[in-house]
Amino acid sequence: MKSPTSRADPAAGNGILSRRIFLESSLAAGMAGIATSGASAEPLSMQPWMQIPGGGFTGYGQPSRFESRVVRAIQPPANPATQGVGPARTPLHLLEGIITPSGLHFERSHSGIPDIDPDQHRLVIHGLVRRPLVFTVEALHRYPMHSQIAFIECAGNSQVLNAPQPQPVPVTVTHGMMGCSEWTGVKLSTLLDEAGVEPTARWLIAEGADSASMSRSIPLAKAMDDALLCLYQNGERIRPSNGYPVRLLLPGFEGNMSVKWLRRLKLVTNAVMSKDETSKYTVLLKDDKAWQFVFPMEVKSVITRPAPGLTLKGAGFYEISGLAWSGNGSIRQVEVSADGGQSWAPAALQGPILPKAPVRFRAPWQWNGRPAVLQSRATDETGMVQPSRAQFAAERGLRGAYHYNAIASWRIDDKGEASNVYG
Amino acid sequence: MKSPTSRADPAAGNGILSRRIFLESSLAAGMAGIATSGASAEPLSMQPWMQIPGGGFTGYGQPSRFESRVVRAIQPPANPATQGVGPARTPLHLLEGIITPSGLHFERSHSGIPDIDPDQHRLVIHGLVRRPLVFTVEALHRYPMHSQIAFIECAGNSQVLNAPQPQPVPVTVTHGMMGCSEWTGVKLSTLLDEAGVEPTARWLIAEGADSASMSRSIPLAKAMDDALLCLYQNGERIRPSNGYPVRLLLPGFEGNMSVKWLRRLKLVTNAVMSKDETSKYTVLLKDDKAWQFVFPMEVKSVITRPAPGLTLKGAGFYEISGLAWSGNGSIRQVEVSADGGQSWAPAALQGPILPKAPVRFRAPWQWNGRPAVLQSRATDETGMVQPSRAQFAAERGLRGAYHYNAIASWRIDDKGEASNVYG
Repeated sequence: MKSPTSRADPAAGNGILSRRIFLESSLAAGMAGIATSGASAEPLSMQPWMQIPGGGFTGYGQPSRFESRVVRAIQPPANPATQGVGPARTPLHLLEGIITPSGLHFERSHSGIPDIDPDQHRLVIHGLVRRPLVFTVEALHRYPMHSQIAFIECAGNSQVLNAPQPQPVPVTVTHGMMGCSEWTGVKLSTLLDEAGVEPTARWLIAEGADSASMSRSIPLAKAMDDALLCLYQNGERIRPSNGYPVRLLLPGFEGNMSVKWLRRLKLVTNAVMSKDETSKYTVLLKDDKAWQFVFPMEVKSVITRPAPGLTLKGAGFYEISGLAWSGNGSIRQVEVSADGGQSWAPAALQGPILPKAPVRFRAPWQWNGRPAVLQSRATDETGMVQPSRAQFAAERGLRGAYHYNAIASWRIDDKGEASNVYG
Repeated sequence: MKSPTSRADPAAGNGILSRRIFLESSLAAGMAGIATSGASAEPLSMQPWMQIPGGGFTGYGQPSRFESRVVRAIQPPANPATQGVGPARTPLHLLEGIITPSGLHFERSHSGIPDIDPDQHRLVIHGLVRRPLVFTVEALHRYPMHSQIAFIECAGNSQVLNAPQPQPVPVTVTHGMMGCSEWTGVKLSTLLDEAGVEPTARWLIAEGADSASMSRSIPLAKAMDDALLCLYQNGERIRPSNGYPVRLLLPGFEGNMSVKWLRRLKLVTNAVMSKDETSKYTVLLKDDKAWQFVFPMEVKSVITRPAPGLTLKGAGFYEISGLAWSGNGSIRQVEVSADGGQSWAPAALQGPILPKAPVRFRAPWQWNGRPAVLQSRATDETGMVQPSRAQFAAERGLRGAYHYNAIASWRIDDKGEASNVYG
């Protein structure tokens, strides 16, 4: 009988197998030893929960009590008097698929989470329009709706990877400010058509109803293209931490432009230079200049399993699983490496592959039990390729806090523990 | 200026407009009067939540306190001593998109919801296999995974529509035993390959770890095709009410075959005639015969807005929004009628259109304020067309409790209230 590794073709160094294994029965050979085999399989013991009737129904369900560790990581605020300022991050290594459960979707708030009464909330469209309009939430429900599965990534996601030395943090901290939902709401273009945009209008100011009045300037072209006024997230009304009762969604653009708790859209001729596009959310370069108005999040990927926060239990077969996304469209290819980028093999992409939505990628890996460095590299439909950290540093330097999209490197040590390293 | 109705082409009787309206700026004309217009739009009043810092973060988020009415409808059990026996239904009229939030996904349990410790749970594959196998939940995580957006519909969904007279119940009760999630887990074929299925095996018994030992016979062909052992639902670990820590998913098949709390798969030669495929889940016909082993859920659709449980507020523009699905594949077309089926127009289908997943359909409707009867009719990729109630009754009779998939009729009265009628 052939050994597992000879049955499964190697596709890159250090144990990366061909993704074709997913289509072949030869996969089974690599699995030997994971399950317990033998006659001990029967009879099964009667567990306590089989011997008594189970619990009753609840109107709104919750996760199992055995999953209480699966929570967002809350970063303590700089000022303890201001709870809810800063990020709460998604534990990507404990999740699968592309949908982020709404209870675990990252949040980044600038003055906490407002407790908004939807019957009192109003959305105004005014400025350079022929007919200023005021919408109740109920009125917004009268308009035709649109649904889209899309990611939102905070511009500051992964900024910890700019540190001179790799920080000992889990993937929650390095990449946990990206989430994906099925968003449903009203196309902004529908409402702008009704308001009648004046020819001199080129931008919109979008303002939130939080006490920070978080506001951003948005190009009119984006507003007329695919901007959505979201009322629903993953089927139900949007969560307070993600903008209840209505948030703007600008698919692919940096997260804070998808203004939460949206109360106002003002049509103007020029960008307004709000604090969140001047003192923040500009991309500092190595020559002391900065880019302003860097809208789409660049092509990026991350291996979520194995990843820092997880430990492998012994040599053998593992699936490398991760997420790839691009603010410029859909993902064309993801490659993986187990030898720190010396050799690469294409990962399998899990459909559906949707524009401005993450794709789940998978690659089979036979770990030999010795130290290894795992990497993933995404390419989007525009041909943009995720850069190495060295390439990113050469182009932009490492002083900026936003739009870091370089390849991440997870070292697996000989005990199976994963950690963040610079490859 | 032309009136809204002359700008938007009628596509069927009683106000159904062309779906092309969604692509044209002419849509705006139909919207007049929904929003408030005029100079009163500015300034906006400062609401209380803008004047104080908002709330802090939580590890696991919840819906807004203003959405507390959005819960599952729990049917009181026949025996008050057995809570958790029967259905809890999804409030479809309060949701949008295709993903059902996990907290609102319908449940149908036969002996309540077991409180399973995942470290103690075991899954066994035995019977006609060369190597019986025992899996811990942790071991299942070692295998390659697969994600799929798929519906699950209880075979008994819509059985209330078999009543001789239309019952005054909301859409929650008529259609709320259908939900859709992104499911992630291990392909059953991977594990069966490892166990080595004997040539004499034709069926599997799937058994749950609830105290009812809910069990069904499953054709081996389905198990080898697209059956999934689900560990994740909408990104996170599957909820207790939906089978934590592992449930079987048989895409498209009647819901109870996707056995929750899965503990055992036994390969056998013949179906075992378990109680849930003999005393229940057979389709009683009008000639006193019954169909057994009716697996795929037939093509079906429902208008979720407007729908019983909702009331329109005055004549004017509305979007008709609903869901269509088929256990035999993907949806090809959905048609809508506002005159009780006298005339039909194609609805717009919201992508992505995926096999064995619901599709959200939308149609624009100009309601004239007078009574109307709304209907939707789905066609799947195999060419199967959702029958009228009369066609269904002629073929099967109306004594069965399962697999009712006829066209539903929602009457809108002159006050805008929607109710269940027989069209």
